[in-house]
Amino acid sequence: MTSTQKPIFLYTGLTPNGFPITIYLEALKSIVPGFDYDYEKIDISTNRQKEPWFIKLNPNGRIPVIVDRSRKDFPVFETSAILLYLAQHYDKQHKYWFSSETEPNEYSDMLQWLFFAHGGIGPMQGQLNHFNRYAPEEIPYAKKRYLDETKRLYGVLDIRLKDRDFLAGAGRGKYSIADIKTFAWVRMHAYSGVESVDEWPNVKAWLERLNKETSVVSGLQVPPRT
Amino acid sequence: MTSTQKPIFLYTGLTPNGFPITIYLEALKSIVPGFDYDYEKIDISTNRQKEPWFIKLNPNGRIPVIVDRSRKDFPVFETSAILLYLAQHYDKQHKYWFSSETEPNEYSDMLQWLFFAHGGIGPMQGQLNHFNRYAPEEIPYAKKRYLDETKRLYGVLDIRLKDRDFLAGAGRGKYSIADIKTFAWVRMHAYSGVESVDEWPNVKAWLERLNKETSVVSGLQVPPRT
Repeated sequence: MTSTQKPIFLYTGLTPNGFPITIYLEALKSIVPGFDYDYEKIDISTNRQKEPWFIKLNPNGRIPVIVDRSRKDFPVFETSAILLYLAQHYDKQHKYWFSSETEPNEYSDMLQWLFFAHGGIGPMQGQLNHFNRYAPEEIPYAKKRYLDETKRLYGVLDIRLKDRDFLAGAGRGKYSIADIKTFAWVRMHAYSGVESVDEWPNVKAWLERLNKETSVVSGLQVPPRT
Repeated sequence: MTSTQKPIFLYTGLTPNGFPITIYLEALKSIVPGFDYDYEKIDISTNRQKEPWFIKLNPNGRIPVIVDRSRKDFPVFETSAILLYLAQHYDKQHKYWFSSETEPNEYSDMLQWLFFAHGGIGPMQGQLNHFNRYAPEEIPYAKKRYLDETKRLYGVLDIRLKDRDFLAGAGRGKYSIADIKTFAWVRMHAYSGVESVDEWPNVKAWLERLNKETSVVSGLQVPPRT
């Protein structure tokens, strides 16, 4: 890294896996002096993410990936692993996460909800997307399966968000990477096929709350739609 | 916790989400003096995991869940979050994981592969299971979709395991919770519908290697089949 380079380079796209990273990077920009990032929008229609140089960064051939220029170009893939990496190396004040040492229970709660989103909401809503929008045939069984499961998972979030503002943290909670990760999927519920979140009032209020966060507003602008 | 109680209570079942926990608990028993656990096999056929007392522990109504009696009955759900919790509180020597402080890159690699398994192999192979074994109708499109994706993900593992014994760690790597989590799914490839792993020689060798680990052998016995 030269002194003029921004520490993080991000490969991303306009997806619910890319946005958690741009939202958190924007949040970090606002609190860490000198922190900034460059990015490249990967055009997945040309399969650029399957080219050998990209597979070296992420053998899974998926965005997002970051390269940390300030740490000898260390590469990180998987949305949630990137969030935890950025937290450890750049969010030393624990503004958007929790200290495993001094807040071990809040830290574990955050991980539990992060994995819940990473292994539940993301993949299941992703399948709903697929069968509603991309599958070349109409398969009612699969559409219903993933609609039911996505709605069930929103119901689980609704239980957690009762009397809380955010998924993890003492009292009403603290805006953290667990919210950022989960929000990026739930916000596109209508696109995926869950028309409204009215039946989960706590989820609805949480979505509205997050939509007002400055980092969310700016993170969702990257990369630009053009 | 009374002085005669074992620190961890585990709610589990004979599933690829339960086994990572029993494997790691057995590994911890072998290295931590006085460490032990009790468990209850949850009979999901009676929906015991949807009862109010269980939903209090895990609003997602799924096994595995642990309760840590030595830390005021703190509950943890989500397989990977449980592994990281047990690591932090009981594997202080970092025998089966990596220190975020002194080995930050190995630690991040471990998280990347843990999330890869948690959000990729688990959910996708889980869908393959469903359409091959449980769906009430024959849906060739879905069967092919999840077979192709599961095989693609095994191919990603095969790239990672080239010249390595384990998924994370310097050199040829170190047996860690990333392997434990991933192994519990890949080992049941044939049950799910991927007959053989011959086309991924590195994955095949890794499976054979893990099958010989003492903790794997004993962890797979819990709960007993009866």
